[in-house]
Amino acid sequence: MVNYSERLDRTFAALVDPTRRAILARLEREESASVSELARPFAIKLPAVMKHLDVLDEAGLITRSKIGRIVTVRLSPEPIREAMDWLRRYERFWSASLDRLAVHAEANEAEMQEKGK
Amino acid sequence: MVNYSERLDRTFAALVDPTRRAILARLEREESASVSELARPFAIKLPAVMKHLDVLDEAGLITRSKIGRIVTVRLSPEPIREAMDWLRRYERFWSASLDRLAVHAEANEAEMQEKGK
Repeated sequence: MVNYSERLDRTFAALVDPTRRAILARLEREESASVSELARPFAIKLPAVMKHLDVLDEAGLITRSKIGRIVTVRLSPEPIREAMDWLRRYERFWSASLDRLAVHAEANEAEMQEKGK
Repeated sequence: MVNYSERLDRTFAALVDPTRRAILARLEREESASVSELARPFAIKLPAVMKHLDVLDEAGLITRSKIGRIVTVRLSPEPIREAMDWLRRYERFWSASLDRLAVHAEANEAEMQEKGK
């Protein structure tokens, strides 16, 4: 079984490559695509695309199903959710100015309530 | 100059390693730390930690400043924000059920307005 940290390793490693990110972005827009459809926009050969799909599959980011000779690829977004949850802890750094606004608003509200007593 | 796609490559590559993620997580909690403080919890030698810091620095995820013999490391969260913005497009996959609720609420509201005419 792969633990949480190893899953994050795999997810981020899968996201390092721009071809793999482009494949994921396409599957976000189109729901599903065949391997040859996915390969078409790229200047790389089919075996290279298949290798990228293997990496995405091992990271749990896609699923592949075969009907006849057609392999259909779909996005499997759970690892992305997990990666985002990890990154989210840093959100406070760029929402710091918003937090200061909220603190200011709360202080104002407390003052108003105090006056209203 | 490094373009958007190359910046994402570097950010995700920096995030692949659990030691680098642990360093970032510590800098999230502590604001700043010296290199030797950062190295202490790890079973790896200082030069290995320095190498990890180089990777984080090249990805723009940390800044280092030297006063006397002490190098102070701080988090630089902008690349994380960019990575999150890239990942955010997949949010609709796990918020799909929330979207359906919103559509339902909007339909109800439209119906109420229609009746109110």
